[in-house]
This record gives sequence, C-alpha cells and structure tokens, in this order.
Amino acid sequence: MSKKTVIVLGIDGYLGWATALHLSQAGHDVIGVDSLVRRRWDRECGTQSLIPIKTMPQRVTLWRRLTGHRIDWRQMDLCDARAVTELILKTQPDALVHFAEQRSAPFSMIDLPHATLTQVNNLVGTLNLLFALRDHAPKAHLIKLGTMGEYGTPNIDIEEGFLTITHNGRQDRLPFPMQPGSFYHLSKLHDSHNIQFACRIWGLRATDLHQGVVYGNHTDDVAMDPGLSTRFDYDAIWGTVLNRFCVQAALGLPLTVYGKGGQTRGFLDIRDTVACVRLALENPATEGEYRVFNQFTEQFSVKTLAEKVRDARAAHGLTTSIVHLPNPRVEREEHYYNAKHQKLLDLGLQPHYLGDTLIESVIDIVERHASRVDPVELEQPNVDWRRGGTANWRRRPVVVSSKTPSPTVARAREKERRVAQTR
Amino acid sequence: MSKKTVIVLGIDGYLGWATALHLSQAGHDVIGVDSLVRRRWDRECGTQSLIPIKTMPQRVTLWRRLTGHRIDWRQMDLCDARAVTELILKTQPDALVHFAEQRSAPFSMIDLPHATLTQVNNLVGTLNLLFALRDHAPKAHLIKLGTMGEYGTPNIDIEEGFLTITHNGRQDRLPFPMQPGSFYHLSKLHDSHNIQFACRIWGLRATDLHQGVVYGNHTDDVAMDPGLSTRFDYDAIWGTVLNRFCVQAALGLPLTVYGKGGQTRGFLDIRDTVACVRLALENPATEGEYRVFNQFTEQFSVKTLAEKVRDARAAHGLTTSIVHLPNPRVEREEHYYNAKHQKLLDLGLQPHYLGDTLIESVIDIVERHASRVDPVELEQPNVDWRRGGTANWRRRPVVVSSKTPSPTVARAREKERRVAQTR
Repeated sequence: MSKKTVIVLGIDGYLGWATALHLSQAGHDVIGVDSLVRRRWDRECGTQSLIPIKTMPQRVTLWRRLTGHRIDWRQMDLCDARAVTELILKTQPDALVHFAEQRSAPFSMIDLPHATLTQVNNLVGTLNLLFALRDHAPKAHLIKLGTMGEYGTPNIDIEEGFLTITHNGRQDRLPFPMQPGSFYHLSKLHDSHNIQFACRIWGLRATDLHQGVVYGNHTDDVAMDPGLSTRFDYDAIWGTVLNRFCVQAALGLPLTVYGKGGQTRGFLDIRDTVACVRLALENPATEGEYRVFNQFTEQFSVKTLAEKVRDARAAHGLTTSIVHLPNPRVEREEHYYNAKHQKLLDLGLQPHYLGDTLIESVIDIVERHASRVDPVELEQPNVDWRRGGTANWRRRPVVVSSKTPSPTVARAREKERRVAQTR
Repeated sequence: MSKKTVIVLGIDGYLGWATALHLSQAGHDVIGVDSLVRRRWDRECGTQSLIPIKTMPQRVTLWRRLTGHRIDWRQMDLCDARAVTELILKTQPDALVHFAEQRSAPFSMIDLPHATLTQVNNLVGTLNLLFALRDHAPKAHLIKLGTMGEYGTPNIDIEEGFLTITHNGRQDRLPFPMQPGSFYHLSKLHDSHNIQFACRIWGLRATDLHQGVVYGNHTDDVAMDPGLSTRFDYDAIWGTVLNRFCVQAALGLPLTVYGKGGQTRGFLDIRDTVACVRLALENPATEGEYRVFNQFTEQFSVKTLAEKVRDARAAHGLTTSIVHLPNPRVEREEHYYNAKHQKLLDLGLQPHYLGDTLIESVIDIVERHASRVDPVELEQPNVDWRRGGTANWRRRPVVVSSKTPSPTVARAREKERRVAQTR
C-alpha cells in the first residue's frame, strides 16, 4: 500500500478527527482542515461535547508527541473559494476525505435560516472543491461523506447508489431513487448529484459514502490519551440515538423512543467508519467514476436499539424503562427496510457488531463525565419537523423525572428560572 | 372556473410575461414580481433581446389601457426572505407561478461563480417561498417551472415524475431517477426534491412543470401591441436552439448543429406554455400533493429541427446549409428518448405543433429586427462544458461567413478591433 497525501476536511468533528488519526497512523500524510464552525454552533445552540475535547493545535501537537506522526493543521472555511483553490493547488493531494458539512438534521429543521445555512454551506463548499479539483488536481480521489438518509425508506431493497431498472421492455442502470427526510439530508443528495455530474463531465473520481448512524467513541488511536478524545454529542440537535439512550440509562431516566420506534436505520461502530474511509482511500475510484458505498454494518429499529440498551443494563441488575414520545419528525414508523452493504465488505471491512460490551463502554463514558451532563440539553424539546424549532429550542424547558435533582439538574433549573424571569 | 389571485414570480422574463398576460386575460388577478436581474445579466453578458421590450411599468400600463385588466407589478428579489414573507402574508395568493430562477445552462457552466450563483439563487429563492407558504398560505398552490432536462437521457421511457419499480419481488412508486446535464439543470432537480419534501411534511400542494424547449414569441395577448412584446434571445448564453437556427437562416448563415445532432429533446410552442400553466392553475394539486407534468408537445432531434428550418426556407426557393460543430456540451449525441406527456393533454391542452408557418413567423421576426442582430452575440464561442467559458465568452471573437459584412457585422468587427487594442 503506497503512502498517500490526503486532506481531511472537517477534521475537528466527531468522525473527522478519528479518521485523521487512523489515516495518519496507517502511514498517510494527513492535512487537516476545519473552519471550527462546529464549536461556534455549540455556543449558539447551548450544547457541548460530553467528553471534553482539546483545541486543534493541542490535539495535533499531542498526536505528534505520542506517535511521531505529523498532521498539517489548517483553519479554513470550505466556502472560501480562493482558499480552497490555493489549498488544492499547493498541496496536490492524492485524495480528500470530505466531512466538512453541517451534519445535523434537527439543526436544518429549526427554521428557514438554518435550512438555508445548511443547504448553502454544504453545496457551496462542495462546488468550490469540485472546481478546484477540475482545475488543479483532476486525478485526486474525492471521498465524500453522504448518508443512508438520502434513500429514505422505499418499499424495495436499497442498492448501493444505482439500480438496474427494466421498464416497458427496456433496461438501464440508473441512480437509485432518493427520498431524503430533512433539509440536511436533502443537502447531501444535492451534493451527490453535483459530484456525480462533475465525474461525468470532467472525469473526476469520487466515492460517495452513504453512511449509517455511527456510535462509539474509541478507536485505537483516540484511546491512546484523553487529550486525543473525539466529540460525544447527546443533545437534541447534535446527538445520535444510541448516545442519547446511553446517557438516559446512565442517569436512570427512561429511554425515549419517537413514536412506535419501528423506524429502521443502518448503524456502525466508529472503528468501522475509520476503516471504511481507509479502504476507500486505498482502493480509489477510477477516472470519471462516481461510486457509492453504503457504509453501515447492521440495521436495527429504534425500538430494538432501546431494548438492547435496556437488556445490557438488566445484565447488571439495573432496571431501565422505555417510553414512547410523540414523534417530532415526519417519517414512517413502520416500514420495510433492507439496505445492501456489500461493497466495503468486499474491500475487506471486518465489522464490529453492536454488543453489550460497546453499550457498557458508552455508558461508562457517560458515568465518567457525569458532572458534565446537562439535563437541559438532554431534555430540550426536539425540533419539530412540522413547526420547526425556533420557539422551542431557545426555551429548552427542563423536564427531568428523577426525584432528587442532581447538581447539574439543579443548576439547569436555576438557569431556566433566571431565563424565564428575564422574559 | 373561479377567479384566482395568482402571483407570477419572474414576470419580466420570456415566459413569465406571456404567462401573466394570458392569466390576466383569462380573468385572474395577477400580481407580478421580478428583481429585473435578467436585464442586468444582459448588460453583463453583452446580450440583448432581439425584439425590443418595454420596462415593466410601461408594459403593465399599456396592458391596462388595452384590456382594462390590472397587473399588480412589484420589484422584489425572491432571495430576500423578509420581502417574500411579507408578499405572501399580505397578498394571500391562491396560487404562485414560479419562473423566478436563473434559467440558462451555459450561464451556469461559465465558471465557479456562475455555477454557485445559479444554484444558490435558485435554491434560496425557492426555500424562502416554501417556508413563507408553510407559515402564511399553506393552501396556496405552487406551480413551479422545472425542466425536462432534469431527466437526462435514460435508456428507458421517461414517465411524468414517478416510476413504479419492481425489484427483488417488491414494488414501490418512486421518484423517477434523474441525471441532469448542467449546474442549472441540477439546481432545478435540487428544487424539485426540496419542494417534494415540503409537500410531504407540511402538506403544501405543488405542480412541478418539467418543461421542454419553448419556441415562438406570439401569444394572442403579446401580439396585441408591439409594446407588449416578450423577449427573443438568440445568443450563446440565453438563446434556444430554434431561435438560433432562425436567426442564422435569416442572415443566410449555415445552421450550426452541435456534434452529430442526434440529441433529442421535448419542444413546445409558447402558446402551449401559457395554456399549460393556466390548466395547472385551474386544476390545482390537492393538499400534500407533489405532482409532475411533463410539459412539451413533440420531441425532435436537433438535426431534425435544423432540417425543418432548412426545408421551410427551401419552400421559398432559399438555400440553407447545415454544418456540424464540435459539441461544447458533454451529452450523448445518439440515444433513446421517449418521454411521456399525457397529463396536460388529459387536462385539455390543445397543442400547436411545429410547422412551416411558425418557423416562417420566427424568421419574419428576425428580418423585421435585422438591424438589432449582433453577430458578436450570434457567433460568440459557446460555453464549453469541460473547460467553462471564462476566457472565451468575454472575448467573443467575430467569425461571420458572409462575404460583404452587413452594417451590424461591420460595427461588431470595429468593436472587436477596439477591444483588442485596449488589451
């Protein structure tokens, strides 16, 4: 395997950071780019990572000290076309891993400014990249993070990006019909179409990783030192479902399932995410090729996932209840779901399946950082797909069911009381 | 048929203006909105309408004087979210006809700024509209101008927006797989997905008119008075294929076909465009419904179209040659094409098919306005899909094959000479 120069765009994020370390450890030359906007959005949304994370300069310095590997860190906004051109021209990368997008569905559904920000930010950044590649690095391999959410929940098997369709006696291999479920998911679909077009007309090469919901925080590299930790989000804007369940379980709260919980999605361990990106990097698309890999290892319904967390706790004699809340999203709660995910296995992916050990390790993380759990974050009303979230998500009323409030709960209630008084 | 309050967005354009008059004449209350950006783009691109067009205030005043019908004209940019909200809130429309987008494929392919402008302008305007409808007029019917170009050229029959797919023994009715051919066409596809989503989650009602290439300049209303004329574009940025052929024929120039000319597309007469929009308006989509009508009446290859123009001239004893130029676009030049267009016929559309009379009337328009033909516009190099057009489209070299230059040719050459000297 030859050493590659690879730019990781969005290196400051949950997966960008873990991926950069994995590729660096594997011997590749990593250039890491981020605008750090996610940290600003945290401040704006009143959210924060449960696990404390270091600044980018601290992280790359520590990484170099521990491993001897250098990550070339650069703060830069992908929406700055001139900066993108200069980056590509000067670094002449073999590949780019593109995580640098607004990646929260609820964030995109808050209101019009958040929907517009999501679509414009994601599209413009990717367009800047495509033109810079055309002009200055047409052979570079673009590895783009897409999402399984682009497909929606069709009543047929989901293939990997393309489907051979026979209609009125004729046949063609066509893009799989897509039905995304939020303005965020739509932005990823728009990107997919733009990238596919750029490959077709300019001969660029791209891999679109349609990723499932990722869980877990420990890769071998991240686990080397607490200073290398990656984000852990559990709030209603940035958190994903398994993290939220584990935080609820650790706090002795009921696990909250939206609606019937029959919503089925693809899931994967963060260790598999970083491995998948490396496999795509080391087995690049050919000139002019736009290919799609469905990047997940197992599919579960939300209800099944809640039951897995409950059962993992029960093994230790702990009782966890599951409650069903009105679903703030507009989505089918019972549907057929069978998505293919063979291509990464064919490239050699060795999946880590979700088991009790992983669930316990996540709950363990929560317990170690319990003093940082903010019930305001945990309990803030979810952004409603029909009405948006403007009115609600700023008020963030605290509804905690534990009888004696923990210090964080008490602090949050006090904060809430003060906010209420100033209205 | 009940009288409706309808907003025509993009009323200053080629089709927006003709549609507004048709709906006004049919007895509907028309509010016309435009940012007038198209006139600014004309100045920037060095292009102009062959037929002189009046200012918007002059046009609506003349229309009122001739017919007694009032069109409520408002200058406004759809990208101004606050203005859009106010418009919808105050006018409470029954329907909106949305032409207000950057609509040139070559313009979108010039360079990165033009690609970005096209996608951001078109997406943001439509998102502003969708949220304003959700909040202030959820029952209004959005009639959106899309394009047949969203489909590309699949090797199967093109249905109207959706396709029933059987796969591995299961079946679903899914969005037709799309393969647009320029950043402009992609912007329309992105819009289509955003609108479809808004209908699904918010219960909005929308008709997406996937329109073919329109020809002709005379509707009954436009023809009432020269002051009511609508645009006629024949340049490499804004012009469409039949207009360009007719201008070439009128000037005695060869008709220039891109590549083999086997590219087949749907076409329709401008009289059918305005009728289709009225049919959609008077037969609205139901609550939550997103429907697609393929809006064209005939399909031809570009080569066939050139031959029709040549034959129409031959009937008058005039010889017209056809030449094939290297194709600046990336597209299949020989392909299967069979697109359905039944739904508007079912609603009562009476098509005007392309015949010699129409071709002669277009050539007649060109001859009447011959003094305004700018060979610089006609002959400027086409925007190249692979390399873009930045370098070329500003230089616009004159290559005219007639032996004795006409006054316009001479003027253009002089202009070109002066420009060359100042470099």
